[in-house]
Amino acid sequence: MIVNCTKDELLLNINIVSKAVASKTTRPILECILITADSDGVRLTANNLELAIETGNINAEIIEKGSVAPEAKMFMEIIRNLPENKVSIETDDKNSVIIKSGKSEFKIFALPGKDFPELPSVEKNFKYETSHTTLKNMIKKTIFAAAVDESRPILTGELLEIKESYFNIVAIDGFRVAFRSEKMKNHNENISVVVPSKTLHEVSRILSDKDDEAVFMYFTDNHALFETKDFTMVSRLLEGEFFKYENSFIDEYNTAVEVNRQELLSSIERATLIVKDMRKSPVEISIKDKMMVITSNTDVGTSYEEVYVEFEGDELDIGFNPKYLIDALKAIDDDKIRIHFMSNLSPCIIKGIESDNYKYLILPLRLVG
Amino acid sequence: MIVNCTKDELLLNINIVSKAVASKTTRPILECILITADSDGVRLTANNLELAIETGNINAEIIEKGSVAPEAKMFMEIIRNLPENKVSIETDDKNSVIIKSGKSEFKIFALPGKDFPELPSVEKNFKYETSHTTLKNMIKKTIFAAAVDESRPILTGELLEIKESYFNIVAIDGFRVAFRSEKMKNHNENISVVVPSKTLHEVSRILSDKDDEAVFMYFTDNHALFETKDFTMVSRLLEGEFFKYENSFIDEYNTAVEVNRQELLSSIERATLIVKDMRKSPVEISIKDKMMVITSNTDVGTSYEEVYVEFEGDELDIGFNPKYLIDALKAIDDDKIRIHFMSNLSPCIIKGIESDNYKYLILPLRLVG
Repeated sequence: MIVNCTKDELLLNINIVSKAVASKTTRPILECILITADSDGVRLTANNLELAIETGNINAEIIEKGSVAPEAKMFMEIIRNLPENKVSIETDDKNSVIIKSGKSEFKIFALPGKDFPELPSVEKNFKYETSHTTLKNMIKKTIFAAAVDESRPILTGELLEIKESYFNIVAIDGFRVAFRSEKMKNHNENISVVVPSKTLHEVSRILSDKDDEAVFMYFTDNHALFETKDFTMVSRLLEGEFFKYENSFIDEYNTAVEVNRQELLSSIERATLIVKDMRKSPVEISIKDKMMVITSNTDVGTSYEEVYVEFEGDELDIGFNPKYLIDALKAIDDDKIRIHFMSNLSPCIIKGIESDNYKYLILPLRLVG
Repeated sequence: MIVNCTKDELLLNINIVSKAVASKTTRPILECILITADSDGVRLTANNLELAIETGNINAEIIEKGSVAPEAKMFMEIIRNLPENKVSIETDDKNSVIIKSGKSEFKIFALPGKDFPELPSVEKNFKYETSHTTLKNMIKKTIFAAAVDESRPILTGELLEIKESYFNIVAIDGFRVAFRSEKMKNHNENISVVVPSKTLHEVSRILSDKDDEAVFMYFTDNHALFETKDFTMVSRLLEGEFFKYENSFIDEYNTAVEVNRQELLSSIERATLIVKDMRKSPVEISIKDKMMVITSNTDVGTSYEEVYVEFEGDELDIGFNPKYLIDALKAIDDDKIRIHFMSNLSPCIIKGIESDNYKYLILPLRLVG
C-alpha cells in the first residue's frame, strides 16, 4: 500500500474513528486503526466489537492499493507531530507502516489489514432520520441516569424508542428516570432497542453540536447503525426487557412549584459543598410561604439557602440525593421549570412549563430525625 | 470576630496563601487558613512548616477583632460559590465560622486561631532586590533538573546564590545541571542557600509572570524570606553542602554546533514518540555534513530526523536521554543555541550564542551496538 494524504485530513478522520478503538483488550488488533486503500478509495476503520466506526472516503491519492492496521495511539501521535502537512504512508513486506513527512521518517510495526474484524452487516430495512445536534443532545441530557453498576445489565444501556411520530431516549438507574422526546421527520415501524451507554457516550462525542446535518438510523435485532455523510457507526444492542418507564410518570400531585432553574441549581450546588457522601447525606427541601428552603447538615457544618418559588398545594419537607437533582437541573435548558411532588416518600417529577420534550423523575431519600 | 469583605478580595488572597496549605498531614491545623482581624487589619495566613505565606492587609471592614482557622479547601469552595460579592464572616463561641452572602448561610467547624503555628521570624539584615518575572522565570527554567529521588536530599533543592553582582539559581540531579544567572540591582553580602524545590515550585506559582514589581529577599541560616507588596513568603532551607557545579562547565570542546532551537526540539520530540522508557532507549544524534541526524530505534519501530546545523570540529555520534534535552530546550527562549561536546562519553553543554545567563549540562547515555 502507498497513499499520499495530508496531516489535517488524517487527523480529522483518526479523531472520528478513535472513539471506537479498544483501550484494554487481549486482542491487540482491536487497539489498531485499519487503513484501507481499495478501488472505492481510502478509509479508516476502528472496531472494539461493541462499537465500530468507518469513515467515508478520505481525500487521498492511492499509488498502490492495500491495507494495514497500525496501533491507534502511536499512529495518531506520529501524525499529529509530523513537521509538514504532506504525508506519505506506505507498507513494506513485513507489514511495517512507513510514514514520511518533510525530513522525518517513521517505520512502525503494524498488523495485517486482513486480520481486522469486519463491520457487522446491518440490513437497511427501515430508515429513520434525525440530526447531529438532536441525537447528541438527547444522549447527553439523559445518559447520566443510566445505571453504572452491572447488577441489572439492561439498565446500563439507554432505551431508544420510536413510537408513533416520536423518538424517545430513556435512562433509568433504579433511583431516577431521565426522558427526552423529539418529533420525527418520517415515521416507519415502531422500534424499541437498548444501546450500551458506553457506546452512546462515544457516539455523542463524535456527533457535532453545531451541525444540523442528517443522521440516518437503521435497526436490526442485534445492531443499531448511525450513518452521516462522513462516517458510519454500528453499535451492538443489549438483550433483555427494559423497565416500563411510562407508568412512573403519573400526572397527579399534591404539591407543585415553578422555580427558576439556575437559582435552584446554584442553591443545591452550594448546599452540597459541605456534603461528603451524597448518597448518605440528603439535602433537605422545605416548601412553604412561596419559598423553597434548602438545608444540609453534616459533620462539617450546616448550610441554609432560600429560593423564591410559585407554589400550589400542600407544604412539604423532602430529602434528596443532591447529585440527582443537580444532574437533572443541569440537563435542562429552560429558565423556569415545574416540579411535582406527591409526598416525601414518593418521587418528584421535573418537567417543562411549556415544552413536554423532557421529564426527569427522582426518588427521595428518607430524612433522618 | 466579625469581618465584612468581598468575595473577589477573599478569593484573590485565598488563592495566594493556598500554595502553603498542607495537603497530607497528621496536624489538621496545617490544612487550614488562618484569618486574623486585629489592630493592623485583616490578613490570611497558611503554613505547612516548609513554606509559610501571609497576605498584606486585605480590603475588609472589622466589626469585631479575633482570629479563626477554617479548613482551607472547604472555605475556598464556599467563598467561590457564594451568590453575591458582599460576604460577612463571623465566629461563634464554639469556633465555628459563619459565612453569609445574599440568601445563603454556612456554618462550618473551624480551629481556634491561637493554635495556628506562627510564621518563622527572619531577621532582615541584608536586603536583595529582584522582580516577580525574574524570580519566577529563573525558578521555572531550572527546577526540572532538581533531583526527585531523596537519596541525596540536598539535590532535591535548588541553589540560590548571590555572588558579586549576580543572582544564580542552579539545579542538579546527578545527570544534568541547569544554571540561570541575572545581574542584581543591589549587592550586599554573598549568599549561598539551598531551598526545597517543592517550596520553590509553589513560590513560582504565586509570582506573576506579567508583573515586573519588586520582590525583596532576605536570608538567615535557616530561612529565606520573599517579600512583595501583597504578601510575604518564608521558606525553610535545606542543610548540607551543594554540588560544586562551577567546575562542570568547562570551556573546551571538540565539536560545536549552532542550531535552531525549535527545530531541534521538535525533531527530538518526534523521535521520542516511539520511545517508551526514556532512561533505557537513548535518542542518537550523529553530527556530520552540516547536519544533525536524530534517530531512535525501539521495539515499536524506528525514526529518522534531519536538522541543519552550523558545525565546527570533529564528527560525533552520541546518545542522550531525550527527556533531558527536551527539558533544557524548552526552558530556553533564544531562537538559536550553541551546543559543545567533548566526546560521546562526556557531557554536552547547551548555552546562548549572545547571552550567557543560562547554561545546561547533560550527561550522555552509552549507545548500544
